[in-house]
Amino acid sequence: MKKYTDMTAEELQSELKVVEAKYEELKGKGLSLNMARGKPGKEQLDLTSEMMDILTSDSDYMCDGIDARNYGNLDGLPSCKKLFAEILGVKPENVFVGGNASLQLMYDTISKAYTHGMKNSSKPWAKLDTVKWLCPAPGYDRHFKVSETFGMEMITVPMTPAGPDMDLVEELIRDPAVKGMWCVPKYSNPDGIVYSDETIRRIASMKPAAEDFLLMWDNAYCVHEFFCDFVPFADILGECAKYGNEDMVFEFASTSKITYPGAGVSVFVCSEGNMAYMMKLLNAQIISYDKVNQLRHVRYLKDKAGVLALMKRHAAILAPKFQCVLDNLDREIAPLGFASWQHPMGGYFISVNTLPGTAKAAWQLCKDAGLTMTNAGATFPYGKDPQDSNMRVAPSLPPIEQLQQAMEVYCTSLKLAALRKLLA
Amino acid sequence: MKKYTDMTAEELQSELKVVEAKYEELKGKGLSLNMARGKPGKEQLDLTSEMMDILTSDSDYMCDGIDARNYGNLDGLPSCKKLFAEILGVKPENVFVGGNASLQLMYDTISKAYTHGMKNSSKPWAKLDTVKWLCPAPGYDRHFKVSETFGMEMITVPMTPAGPDMDLVEELIRDPAVKGMWCVPKYSNPDGIVYSDETIRRIASMKPAAEDFLLMWDNAYCVHEFFCDFVPFADILGECAKYGNEDMVFEFASTSKITYPGAGVSVFVCSEGNMAYMMKLLNAQIISYDKVNQLRHVRYLKDKAGVLALMKRHAAILAPKFQCVLDNLDREIAPLGFASWQHPMGGYFISVNTLPGTAKAAWQLCKDAGLTMTNAGATFPYGKDPQDSNMRVAPSLPPIEQLQQAMEVYCTSLKLAALRKLLA
Repeated sequence: MKKYTDMTAEELQSELKVVEAKYEELKGKGLSLNMARGKPGKEQLDLTSEMMDILTSDSDYMCDGIDARNYGNLDGLPSCKKLFAEILGVKPENVFVGGNASLQLMYDTISKAYTHGMKNSSKPWAKLDTVKWLCPAPGYDRHFKVSETFGMEMITVPMTPAGPDMDLVEELIRDPAVKGMWCVPKYSNPDGIVYSDETIRRIASMKPAAEDFLLMWDNAYCVHEFFCDFVPFADILGECAKYGNEDMVFEFASTSKITYPGAGVSVFVCSEGNMAYMMKLLNAQIISYDKVNQLRHVRYLKDKAGVLALMKRHAAILAPKFQCVLDNLDREIAPLGFASWQHPMGGYFISVNTLPGTAKAAWQLCKDAGLTMTNAGATFPYGKDPQDSNMRVAPSLPPIEQLQQAMEVYCTSLKLAALRKLLA
Repeated sequence: MKKYTDMTAEELQSELKVVEAKYEELKGKGLSLNMARGKPGKEQLDLTSEMMDILTSDSDYMCDGIDARNYGNLDGLPSCKKLFAEILGVKPENVFVGGNASLQLMYDTISKAYTHGMKNSSKPWAKLDTVKWLCPAPGYDRHFKVSETFGMEMITVPMTPAGPDMDLVEELIRDPAVKGMWCVPKYSNPDGIVYSDETIRRIASMKPAAEDFLLMWDNAYCVHEFFCDFVPFADILGECAKYGNEDMVFEFASTSKITYPGAGVSVFVCSEGNMAYMMKLLNAQIISYDKVNQLRHVRYLKDKAGVLALMKRHAAILAPKFQCVLDNLDREIAPLGFASWQHPMGGYFISVNTLPGTAKAAWQLCKDAGLTMTNAGATFPYGKDPQDSNMRVAPSLPPIEQLQQAMEVYCTSLKLAALRKLLA
């Protein structure tokens, strides 16, 4: 197969006819498929059923001398702090256990920066005229939505195969109005990139002009390998501490993609100084998050080894789905030369960079043929991809039979949008 | 027994000797008792055990066509919205279901007023020089802490047996800097007062100068009778709507004292306009609260009748505890004439007004004899009771045997503090 970019107008026209016919055929099937979000499929949800039966008698609720059902213990059940400390390679006293959503912990941390200021702030951010924020992109749309809702001025930082472009980051943080940065260090959403040791060292040793710079380290996929065994990762709090930067970072993690997306447990990790500061503020907000659910997780997952064993079972479900997506792309699209993508070893996404100027059109073609994809542009600040090129593919939700159909629609739509652009 | 206030100095001296001896005897027992918080006791927690076994097979998680375990449904499981709508006498579309803490929903609502403004705000409150807030007192210490953490100027409004002093409220809301008010309309914390129909009508028909006045209606004890059958209450949203004030009110409730304090379900209720506004803001904060726990509650509680039946079982445990406190006060303190208290039919507290200038001293005497009480002053803004008179008694946590001991310590401490004051 010849590359689209090498084809003559006649060849493109002839290919267009073939692809259009294929597209109409697929559209005629009246499909209803969804690859929009990183939602685990039912098979994955069923993996954890035993967790729900684990607390049965009244005495089961006692843990660490605490009745998990009652009020108290703002920072979480000690056993749950310990479990996450082991997973993340930190000390239990650096762990705060929240509710079912790490997004909420992230939002609340930034919200408190606005209403109260962070520990080292001279004033609450709500009192500032401008708050600028570094957004490595493509990135996670919900991160950018948090920045947007608080009216931050988002600055796009390009992603490289080793993580965010650190030359640019080091330049940008000289501006004291730049108050923070989003990071997904392992299997970044959506590229699946793992930050290199050098990138992590450069991040941990940053000297931002803002005294209250906030590194939002969303370790969402810390144990989420699907094509390989567990890959160890850096303890960012310890790395930052090496450079006197321990107050700069908040790390986030959750069991949303370990146990249940809607009923898991989330944590943040921070320095002792930040913990004391946040506990004082959090004490006005909540008496404690759901400790019964924390206890369920402790009893079921037990320890890091228990978590990794469960992640192997998730991988057994996810690997064929990711393989299906990659096989389709490698077979159908790679030879045509107009698009590229990473081959991630873990995480929840495959990030496709298609022919510039065609992502939105391809998204619409998918939609019209019954396939819902993540909005084109969603992976960039303000939902605007300057190249109109990046598309996030989320293979986890559809059963594998549907996924093959979805990929036919997707690849055909990519081709059709590219052909129309090249012929325009 | 003669009233303390009618005694001569000699009589007081002689009484002091008797009470001091009693106090030293109690102190010598080395007790460790706690009546500080409205925590349910273990017997109450055990009432709900069946709820935890209610979801067993994988198909149990499907409800309203939704897999409760997965992401989605920001405003909660439709069945759970319906359950609370029935309890609160509103429509399901006016209900947002949150996590385990209504305090968090209250904090977040006010936090959003500061960062984004309420629906009818001309600007976020963080941009204002002064935010004033009405605090009927004695009131709930955690409400006042929320106001305090945001730097509000709290204005104390005296409580009457019919609710907040509405003449004063109507006067104060003419100031556009007065942005809202805390209310616990049924079995108010700590007085156990039920707002009268007339008070509720005057509140619902208020015409505050602030266009974004926020009535925080914490219906924490809406079904929490212990001495009588369920007493119907007004639907505040409907009442406000009668006067075109539907955007003024947010009502809050939870199952913290129906199922579990640390693992229940909370809700807010608001107008359709407010709901649309809040959903837009909440969408940046969380994908949804824990719907599995919502589902557990729906399956276990079923409907309002199910809730009321469970509350009867709570009442059977709580009534003897409240009776014990009241009996002790009526027998030991009432004849002495220096203190007064309400006889609530529901709620979680008994509010004692002791001899002015002696509440802190009595609290310290309790503490020294091994009995932890709610801090004297906690029921007033900034923790400062201008009369140093109010003390909140929380009888729910200790087993009944301990409660009798605790009340001996408490009554003796009240007497001793009063005698020392009268003799000073």
